[in-house]
Amino acid sequence: MSAHPIKVGLLGLGVVGGGTWKVLNQNAEEIARRAGRRIEVAAVAVRDIEKARRLVGDDILVVQDGAQVATHPDIDIVVELMGGHSLARDWIMQAIAHGKHVVTANKALLAEYGNEIFAAAQAKGVMVAFEAAVAGGIPIVKAIREGLAANRIQWLAGIINGTTNFILSEMRARGEPFTEALAEAQRLGYAEADPTFDVEGIDAAHKLTLLASLAFGIPVQFDKAYTEGIARLAQEDLAHAERLGYRVKLLGITRRRPEGIELRVHPTLVPAENMLASVQGAMNAVLVQGDAVGPTLYYGQGAGALPTASAVVADLVDVTRLQAADPGHQVPPLAFQPDAMDDTPVLPMADVLSSYYLRLRVQDRPGVLADVARILADVGISIGSMFQEPHGDTEADIIFLTHQAREGDIDSALQRIVGLPFVHSDVTRLRVENLS
Amino acid sequence: MSAHPIKVGLLGLGVVGGGTWKVLNQNAEEIARRAGRRIEVAAVAVRDIEKARRLVGDDILVVQDGAQVATHPDIDIVVELMGGHSLARDWIMQAIAHGKHVVTANKALLAEYGNEIFAAAQAKGVMVAFEAAVAGGIPIVKAIREGLAANRIQWLAGIINGTTNFILSEMRARGEPFTEALAEAQRLGYAEADPTFDVEGIDAAHKLTLLASLAFGIPVQFDKAYTEGIARLAQEDLAHAERLGYRVKLLGITRRRPEGIELRVHPTLVPAENMLASVQGAMNAVLVQGDAVGPTLYYGQGAGALPTASAVVADLVDVTRLQAADPGHQVPPLAFQPDAMDDTPVLPMADVLSSYYLRLRVQDRPGVLADVARILADVGISIGSMFQEPHGDTEADIIFLTHQAREGDIDSALQRIVGLPFVHSDVTRLRVENLS
Repeated sequence: MSAHPIKVGLLGLGVVGGGTWKVLNQNAEEIARRAGRRIEVAAVAVRDIEKARRLVGDDILVVQDGAQVATHPDIDIVVELMGGHSLARDWIMQAIAHGKHVVTANKALLAEYGNEIFAAAQAKGVMVAFEAAVAGGIPIVKAIREGLAANRIQWLAGIINGTTNFILSEMRARGEPFTEALAEAQRLGYAEADPTFDVEGIDAAHKLTLLASLAFGIPVQFDKAYTEGIARLAQEDLAHAERLGYRVKLLGITRRRPEGIELRVHPTLVPAENMLASVQGAMNAVLVQGDAVGPTLYYGQGAGALPTASAVVADLVDVTRLQAADPGHQVPPLAFQPDAMDDTPVLPMADVLSSYYLRLRVQDRPGVLADVARILADVGISIGSMFQEPHGDTEADIIFLTHQAREGDIDSALQRIVGLPFVHSDVTRLRVENLS
Repeated sequence: MSAHPIKVGLLGLGVVGGGTWKVLNQNAEEIARRAGRRIEVAAVAVRDIEKARRLVGDDILVVQDGAQVATHPDIDIVVELMGGHSLARDWIMQAIAHGKHVVTANKALLAEYGNEIFAAAQAKGVMVAFEAAVAGGIPIVKAIREGLAANRIQWLAGIINGTTNFILSEMRARGEPFTEALAEAQRLGYAEADPTFDVEGIDAAHKLTLLASLAFGIPVQFDKAYTEGIARLAQEDLAHAERLGYRVKLLGITRRRPEGIELRVHPTLVPAENMLASVQGAMNAVLVQGDAVGPTLYYGQGAGALPTASAVVADLVDVTRLQAADPGHQVPPLAFQPDAMDDTPVLPMADVLSSYYLRLRVQDRPGVLADVARILADVGISIGSMFQEPHGDTEADIIFLTHQAREGDIDSALQRIVGLPFVHSDVTRLRVENLS
């Protein structure tokens, strides 16, 4: 075992930073037995120096200015666990400029500024590792980047936001409306006071953006991701989905098609027998389809101090091992060599292919169904199954499952359908993925 | 990208060898984009040279003597996909002696001779990679070895034999007895004509032996593994288990306890809501519990030409990257540095802790239950739940679930129970794992 420990500088000592400190200490022995040398925190940048001192003691440099950590000559690896855009980005760029390797859990930063950060790292010959940025402790970045390196990845679909999966699990288990399940999630600490980021699918879209780059070797393109959250999901649609053999999950889906890459986050009907349908509560899971391996699934806790720290420290072990290698032998951050990236475009949502669940309230009289079906047929959409639920004496809800269609065609059909005189509601439209 | 391709020598061109050839060719571009250089098969050792020529063409060295491939100066990595013990072992040892890295899918060989092979590789500074030896295309070796490197692993439990999981799925879905489900598995090519190896749990025990070494940093010790297959499982026990909220799976389980390591393969009652219970047909899955990450699960195809080739080629990409590193920076084959292995003993089966499902046929008269419960209580075993099924007019089956107990204590209790005059059968005993 090497006598020289690796020296780590931590930017941030909050939930994940504190968890990383704890794991590095609690499992120091186990980690050194694997890595071949000790991994030690030598410096910390925090807002509250006194509070940090109480945790890390007096033997470690504790400062407020992250730049001092990012540029410190004794530090080998800078670990950014602050979150946010501006300071985190500055300090990461300074660390890279000073030849430090970087480990970060900052999905929002990488999804928006990853291209710039990875390019700077490549120019300096340092690594940027981000296992903790996607699906917490699940080693999904490593699985796609290395474990499935033999495959042409065809698509992946993931439950990559625990808050929304918790809310959907509650809505299903207790028959609660969204607002009550959200309140419960907030009470239990699964959702923040302002839940927008999770509930509207933005957090999932950040992670999906990174997964798509790893899977297909395309630059990160968060601005092209389609994002639709769960706040408008009605309890009755969950029940209808169940009756049709599906469960509703917030999925991040990315798929390679000859025309381009689909990149989208939205509530999705998933077959009840699919492994993703069994993912309960705040757990995460990612299903990846490769041409050689077929489907593989990765499941675990997607958030929390120790699970996320598990991913941070795994990256530290990797970087410790690979730092001696020349850049040509390091694992490229986005799985593909920087000179072998792909410029396949991300498709606009209108060009996405999906099956659809449609629900509309209509006047209950003969001919209604025929008129709606005619409009769908006019744009080439065929219906897989259909059922009707009476609503009062004169109205009914019609629920359709369509076969696969272009989203743009569904849009134009729905526009015509809501204009029909006997249609009394907007059309509820959910996407259906058979994941095969 | 490097101009020099990596040269691979294949030992064996059967199902997995042919699959590896196919994946390396079909995805040559995608693999080079990730690895930074091309990976090419330069030599093949096979029994039937003519048949091999038809697949690989005339530009590649094709020989019968694997030693020629294992020692060939142009070959960088030797891939052993023949199976079996004697030739495979000789040629792998020769390859190592000649400074070649080795990739193998041979779980039986590594489970029995791994310590010797890994020691020889360490002495020569070469790598031995074996992702394909456990759970086919699922990157479980990499996940434990690298992805969970921050964790003290507490236990893992896996469905790591597709044949038996297929048979158990059929028995459950169709209410078939074991023999009919086996025949169906043979008809579909999931089971061999002589199914002993799979059905008796030996194949699963080989894989579990390797997983235990990766998880705990102990030498491979196949001879210490307890192995019990599924051939004696009765349909009615599957049904009773279901009624109690469980499904029966053939699990490989290894657990670290202060006294030692549990290492065991046997039919197991798994809670119906656990992800492992949802694993259907010939699919594999491994659930790993780490102290930081909590539970994580890895799921996919555990066998077949292309899934297994996916793992072989992932190893080739890893070895290609790491071959430039000095041995101190390579990933150790059993996850822990060779000088940091652990000598924690593997516990004898009598010292294993488990809950138990017990079924016995008794004369249906008052006092029977009290006598049986008394014997269990005498050795400190408490009963979690119980129910009785009438059998004819004068007999009944009693089904118990016990709380956790030492296997040795259960053994002695059962010995006394079967001696009771009103007990008319052997006791069926299955182990129960709550996997939490």
